[in-house]
Amino acid sequence: MRRPVLIVSGILALSAAAPTAAQQDPVAALKPAADRLIDAALADTAAWERLTYFVDRFGNRFSGSESLEAAHDWILAEMERDGLENVRGEPVMVPRWVRGEESATLIEPRRQELPMLGLGGSIATPPEGITAEVLVVSSFDELERRAAEARGKIVLFDVPFTTYGETVRYRSQGAIAAARAGAVASLIRSVTPFSMKTPHTGGMAYSDDVPRIPHAAITVEDAMLLHRLQDRGERIVVTLRMSAQTLPDAESKNVIGELRGRELPDEIVVLGGHTDSWDVGQGAMDDAGGVIAAWEAVRLMKELGLRPRRTVRVVGWTNEENGLRGATAYRDAHRDELDRHVLAIESDAGVFKPLGYGFTGSDEAFEIVSAIGALLERIDAGTITRGGGGADIGPIMQLGVPGMGLNVDGSRYFWYHHTDADTIDKLDMREFLECVASLAVMAYAAAELPAPLPRAAQE
Amino acid sequence: MRRPVLIVSGILALSAAAPTAAQQDPVAALKPAADRLIDAALADTAAWERLTYFVDRFGNRFSGSESLEAAHDWILAEMERDGLENVRGEPVMVPRWVRGEESATLIEPRRQELPMLGLGGSIATPPEGITAEVLVVSSFDELERRAAEARGKIVLFDVPFTTYGETVRYRSQGAIAAARAGAVASLIRSVTPFSMKTPHTGGMAYSDDVPRIPHAAITVEDAMLLHRLQDRGERIVVTLRMSAQTLPDAESKNVIGELRGRELPDEIVVLGGHTDSWDVGQGAMDDAGGVIAAWEAVRLMKELGLRPRRTVRVVGWTNEENGLRGATAYRDAHRDELDRHVLAIESDAGVFKPLGYGFTGSDEAFEIVSAIGALLERIDAGTITRGGGGADIGPIMQLGVPGMGLNVDGSRYFWYHHTDADTIDKLDMREFLECVASLAVMAYAAAELPAPLPRAAQE
Repeated sequence: MRRPVLIVSGILALSAAAPTAAQQDPVAALKPAADRLIDAALADTAAWERLTYFVDRFGNRFSGSESLEAAHDWILAEMERDGLENVRGEPVMVPRWVRGEESATLIEPRRQELPMLGLGGSIATPPEGITAEVLVVSSFDELERRAAEARGKIVLFDVPFTTYGETVRYRSQGAIAAARAGAVASLIRSVTPFSMKTPHTGGMAYSDDVPRIPHAAITVEDAMLLHRLQDRGERIVVTLRMSAQTLPDAESKNVIGELRGRELPDEIVVLGGHTDSWDVGQGAMDDAGGVIAAWEAVRLMKELGLRPRRTVRVVGWTNEENGLRGATAYRDAHRDELDRHVLAIESDAGVFKPLGYGFTGSDEAFEIVSAIGALLERIDAGTITRGGGGADIGPIMQLGVPGMGLNVDGSRYFWYHHTDADTIDKLDMREFLECVASLAVMAYAAAELPAPLPRAAQE
Repeated sequence: MRRPVLIVSGILALSAAAPTAAQQDPVAALKPAADRLIDAALADTAAWERLTYFVDRFGNRFSGSESLEAAHDWILAEMERDGLENVRGEPVMVPRWVRGEESATLIEPRRQELPMLGLGGSIATPPEGITAEVLVVSSFDELERRAAEARGKIVLFDVPFTTYGETVRYRSQGAIAAARAGAVASLIRSVTPFSMKTPHTGGMAYSDDVPRIPHAAITVEDAMLLHRLQDRGERIVVTLRMSAQTLPDAESKNVIGELRGRELPDEIVVLGGHTDSWDVGQGAMDDAGGVIAAWEAVRLMKELGLRPRRTVRVVGWTNEENGLRGATAYRDAHRDELDRHVLAIESDAGVFKPLGYGFTGSDEAFEIVSAIGALLERIDAGTITRGGGGADIGPIMQLGVPGMGLNVDGSRYFWYHHTDADTIDKLDMREFLECVASLAVMAYAAAELPAPLPRAAQE
């Protein structure tokens, strides 16, 4: 551990020279501590090694899997070793969907395997599969216009990626719309702007008023191929086989560690990401990087002796991907102290080059977090925008907790999202360490400022 | 068919106004024809539709496959329909390697499937597979230093991509080096600068003085993973199963069509690419695009009534990927007329944005083709560099035929090379049509100039 005696002396000297300025601008007074956190984060290659070790050892960590719970146990043991306080797992029951064997095969006009991933929560096909003609549509509107043609067919939504929000509707709602038109199964073009013949999985929904039909994603390449074949008047037949099962809920946990506040331990800044991933790849970007960056941010405060006024709490939420049970369990378990949650920070956009934060809260709080952002300008990560948060902090934000999400360069995020290619090699150590720095500075500052972030007046 | 009467009048008017300049600079005199070819190529969306239809209908076209020969038959029939002359298939016997079922599975320290592709020509494993400890090395040198550790193991060459030439040595020579050290099988990191968990296949060699061992490519991600596990002291065990077979040679053909020269039909400009591909993806970029661009270049000359002085011959060579039998068969079948081959042009670097050509030939010829390049400056495709050619024209270039390869923006070429992701959607219609234009102008000019390209003096 380094003993930065000279730097501390420097701070004292500075404080002595300009005490009034520091008192007038409490955020600016945090600059020396912020700089120490940034310097330490950027030098902290152990953080990168911890992330790499984590994803290599546990691989993907789907809700209900052994690997997720082994990962939780390891995190808790390591947090203890780090000397974090109140280290604990808080129990959460999570859904358990098991993919099983699955395949899609083009039968007509010529035989070809179609790489695919069933969508999380889908029912299975019969054991012999579903063999049916395919109707390709470009939108829900086109399906509605051609509903008469969809009956008895497999509907393929070949929808090019625009924004995630726009395109993911076909993943979440496609099976409902297709079943409503009488389809026997539905397929989507994977939700991504770029493909190397890569299927992307993700969550989906059923509706009680229409039959449940199997729902899966094929690759961009094959969705476009089938669309072209249809445009040429070819008859397209596909066999879809899925053996997915929904089993009884499984035991899981949110993993938690703290650095207790030195003056106001009952006031809390919570930060983290989610420990679970889909059942493919390493879940490195989504979201091992987010959890471990947040954890390292708190560990660095401890290592540097920067114990803030309020408690800083790191949480690895479970089951973000297919249930949000960790997020709702946290809300329920901590309902009594949510009014003392000063700020909630989530990192779940990939630990790429950080740019700043998107913040949801009062105008007064926005001004303060914007000032904190200025402390991150030396790593070009200080841009605070309005709006933002995260899936895991969503339930507590709805109850009034100010929330923010770490914004990063997301240009390749959806290339890897929910695929076998979400692996550690897609990340860059320096960018990851800048994420650690960004989280450390924001969490420390929000926990250290004399006053808590002002909430909007209750309406 | 368009009748560009006004343009022809324009050329005549220009010639009348400046006859001396045109006579002094025969390349510049070709500008009106070059402009017509470029305009027609860029407007020729049927070329793109032909390419798309071709790859969608025939898929990949491996030597010895039904799809390759069906593709050949279709090309010959379409060339006839286009009104090309001397349309014919010239027989070639090609090797026939059949991949069969194959897999690689990480067994220790934890079970995980490793997506893989056997390398073309590899022997099979025993039916139960080869299960052995893995030794990861970064280079042939490291293998030599650690040869004692390699005996009885599976050697994995985890060599990051630098240039193709440098890195592909591990694909072609890896099984020899590993067997020499006593390994029971060898694996390589796929030869690519970018991966989405994508294995890349390709050719490989054995040597008669060491045992033949199975040889396959795993993904960049997994090669890096295994290397990290080894660096952490983990014992790594993999089961490799391959059932590849080398069957008797199969009948194939080079497919050929011509536009006979109006004055010197026995002098020939030959251009083309290869019809075969690996047994993955669509072989769209490698090299359906090259063959069809060359074919369209000749078809456009015919359609525009631009029959040059010499014969322009388009060739779809077979078996470039795993044997070069089409290339050597062409050399042997045309040995008598190679001294009248004025120029050979190959497009086999992907039909991305064309930049110009790499040329191998005499200094005098280089000056002339550089001047022809200037005719392509309006589409920024006029840069002629020294050195270049192509695998299929290599054997005739060795016998003195001046040769050139179409240079393109290759920034993503090796992302898709020899993978399931070499599909039509990776190409851009406008860029492809610029390739057609580039091939048309170069082939036309070389076939039209008063004198043939001068060859280097015989030594």
